[in-house]
Amino acid sequence: MTQVADAAALHDVTEAVLETARRAKIASRTLATATRGTKDAALGALADALVANAEEIVAANEIDLDRGRSNGTSPGLLDRLALTPERIGAIADALRELAALPDPVGEVVRGSTLPNGLRLRQERVPMGVVGMIYEARPNVTVDAAGLALKSGNAVILRGGSAAASSNEVIVRVLADALTAQGLPADLVQSIDAYGRPGAVALMHARGLVDVLVPRGGADLIQTVVRESTVPVIETGVGNCHVFLDASAELETSIAIVLNSKTHRVGVCNAAETLLVHADAAQALLPGVLAALGAADVVVHADPLTAALAPEGVTVVPATDEDWATEYLSLDLAVRVVADLDEAIDHVRTWTSGHTEAIVTKDLRSSERFVAELDSAAIMVNASTRFTDGGQFGLGAEIGISTQKLHARGPMGLAELTTTKWVVNGDGHIRS
Amino acid sequence: MTQVADAAALHDVTEAVLETARRAKIASRTLATATRGTKDAALGALADALVANAEEIVAANEIDLDRGRSNGTSPGLLDRLALTPERIGAIADALRELAALPDPVGEVVRGSTLPNGLRLRQERVPMGVVGMIYEARPNVTVDAAGLALKSGNAVILRGGSAAASSNEVIVRVLADALTAQGLPADLVQSIDAYGRPGAVALMHARGLVDVLVPRGGADLIQTVVRESTVPVIETGVGNCHVFLDASAELETSIAIVLNSKTHRVGVCNAAETLLVHADAAQALLPGVLAALGAADVVVHADPLTAALAPEGVTVVPATDEDWATEYLSLDLAVRVVADLDEAIDHVRTWTSGHTEAIVTKDLRSSERFVAELDSAAIMVNASTRFTDGGQFGLGAEIGISTQKLHARGPMGLAELTTTKWVVNGDGHIRS
Repeated sequence: MTQVADAAALHDVTEAVLETARRAKIASRTLATATRGTKDAALGALADALVANAEEIVAANEIDLDRGRSNGTSPGLLDRLALTPERIGAIADALRELAALPDPVGEVVRGSTLPNGLRLRQERVPMGVVGMIYEARPNVTVDAAGLALKSGNAVILRGGSAAASSNEVIVRVLADALTAQGLPADLVQSIDAYGRPGAVALMHARGLVDVLVPRGGADLIQTVVRESTVPVIETGVGNCHVFLDASAELETSIAIVLNSKTHRVGVCNAAETLLVHADAAQALLPGVLAALGAADVVVHADPLTAALAPEGVTVVPATDEDWATEYLSLDLAVRVVADLDEAIDHVRTWTSGHTEAIVTKDLRSSERFVAELDSAAIMVNASTRFTDGGQFGLGAEIGISTQKLHARGPMGLAELTTTKWVVNGDGHIRS
Repeated sequence: MTQVADAAALHDVTEAVLETARRAKIASRTLATATRGTKDAALGALADALVANAEEIVAANEIDLDRGRSNGTSPGLLDRLALTPERIGAIADALRELAALPDPVGEVVRGSTLPNGLRLRQERVPMGVVGMIYEARPNVTVDAAGLALKSGNAVILRGGSAAASSNEVIVRVLADALTAQGLPADLVQSIDAYGRPGAVALMHARGLVDVLVPRGGADLIQTVVRESTVPVIETGVGNCHVFLDASAELETSIAIVLNSKTHRVGVCNAAETLLVHADAAQALLPGVLAALGAADVVVHADPLTAALAPEGVTVVPATDEDWATEYLSLDLAVRVVADLDEAIDHVRTWTSGHTEAIVTKDLRSSERFVAELDSAAIMVNASTRFTDGGQFGLGAEIGISTQKLHARGPMGLAELTTTKWVVNGDGHIRS
């Protein structure tokens, strides 16, 4: 009997999620033909509503934090989870900044008149329904809703249990604000109440959900990639490399390595491995390693590197596991390579395809590094940390795609749209 | 012991396919940095090799045809399978036409200098390794190899057992021609020898295969979409609609309906349902149905339509199944709708999102039809048959995408590329 009951419950959850998706699809049609004015006004109203309801949101967030503390959640994760009136203000400001960005919808990407007189244009239209699966960051709830709204899409949110109380209140506040603006509340819906079976149902709602964007750790992303039949945009795993070429200058090398590794350690565009050309190792490594050591970086070194490390730098031996690891911490794998070819081979073998940087004065080296590596972003004499939608001037960022289909690298609003071909004729037929 | 042996065999097939993919990845690097001149010369050499080896290819094809005949394969499928010296000549010519097209690789899609002086550009680069899963059409083997080569990609082909002998010889001829041009033979590989388990392994080779394009019937495509963890571009299912608005003229209506339905019936951009505005039904339907009847089209009609059918037209009652069906034959579902709203509702409910056409003189109707429907292509006063890479001036066509991610509608060479961000600095770090 339990099995039958389980199956019935699962069926109910699946049906509920599909119904959520159907409502989202219908709501998305209202938004697809809405003007930019309507959408920007709604974004402003969402921002105002969050600020006006900050007290209730903070109270709900306190419940999540309490549960997190008693579950032994780490201080870092608790900090990501925590909302204060100030943080809510900043989240609301981000919505207002979204309103100031150009509308991607309606942009004509290509257009021409064909030899037979048919007038052809390809224009940006919303995806329709965007699914977001993410972890324990209630700011993503607002962020995703805002990005979806601005790009003309409905969004279905699956935010994970750790932030369930916060997300529940936030989604209600947003939906009420949409209703007050004369827009369908179904534009922003949560399926948190349906737990993990709900997430699975979302991943299989092909035809109703147009794209799924997972945001979170590597495990979460891999699960979504593996299980989803809805098209997925894979984001965010960054095993980024910095290569110091034979001609690299010490000062530039120290600046770029330090910035790439230590500017912010828990992010996908932080460097995780440093490669140094053998011809420059003696000139560069002692200074670079000393600077890393002074910044409390633990160096996971190959034997050649270890031999050049000054006193006081924490050095541990590197294994193949280090070359593969995205530390997201004050750790850096360091290896001396024979030449540019060995550097390129190393990166090709171990990279997650996010960002690689070269420090060089040599034109040929920079051109080969750019041409022969196959990652979303290649930096020449610049920090890996620049791979970012804001830094690239895209205005807003949904995430950083490490796949090749649809979007690669920082994704802005345009990446939440698709295109439609519109053909105008005068009774044209094919002969 | 059998289970153990099966598992071992499966493991061997998986390893063999992964090894094929690894070799393809390595080979693709040669091509990624090859000039257009090198690629175009190779395309010419492939064309010459096919013509030079036409006799051997036709002999292998005869084996496939014999097997097909004794398996009771339909005449239509046997015709698609058949190769003659003339057909091989046409296939070779298509390769030469590919050589004449611009190279998508290296095109700068966006570029700017950021406020901090970083020079940013986003440029087209090859995907890397493209997988094709298709059925019983040996011309697709050459087509896919040519498109992949021109766009700088390696290709892995899974062509199905019906054309196994033809494909084996064709792939060998192409690989030999590549070698003679100084290019890696691994750029064009077949995994037909590994049967269905090989296809499954290909669908799970995420990280080695960058995109999978299934071409064939709806069953094949759905299987790939469901099973693949490699990103898939869904192609080709077309349940296309023509809507005759209240203001449509009889002559234009007949021309567009006939052309959309009967110009070629077995293709995805053929019309499968005709919707007629109630206000125009009496004026249009008798003439349109008579023309369809004269062209041997069987009309699957709702009661209002059936009542207006002239003598001699074959009419059968339509059910919901008809609205959902992609006939790919001389059949057409026909329904009278109350107004534009009901037409839009009908299309939204039943379409596969390929192509919809409206025949109208009314500006407001045409604008609503374009804005409110969410399909890859919308035709105003033109036949659905125009949704085609060649017709759109894209030069070559990999397929017609009915999904929203990456590519929508006819896909040309650019759709077999991704982009890379290249950032040039002068020791830039983030503050």
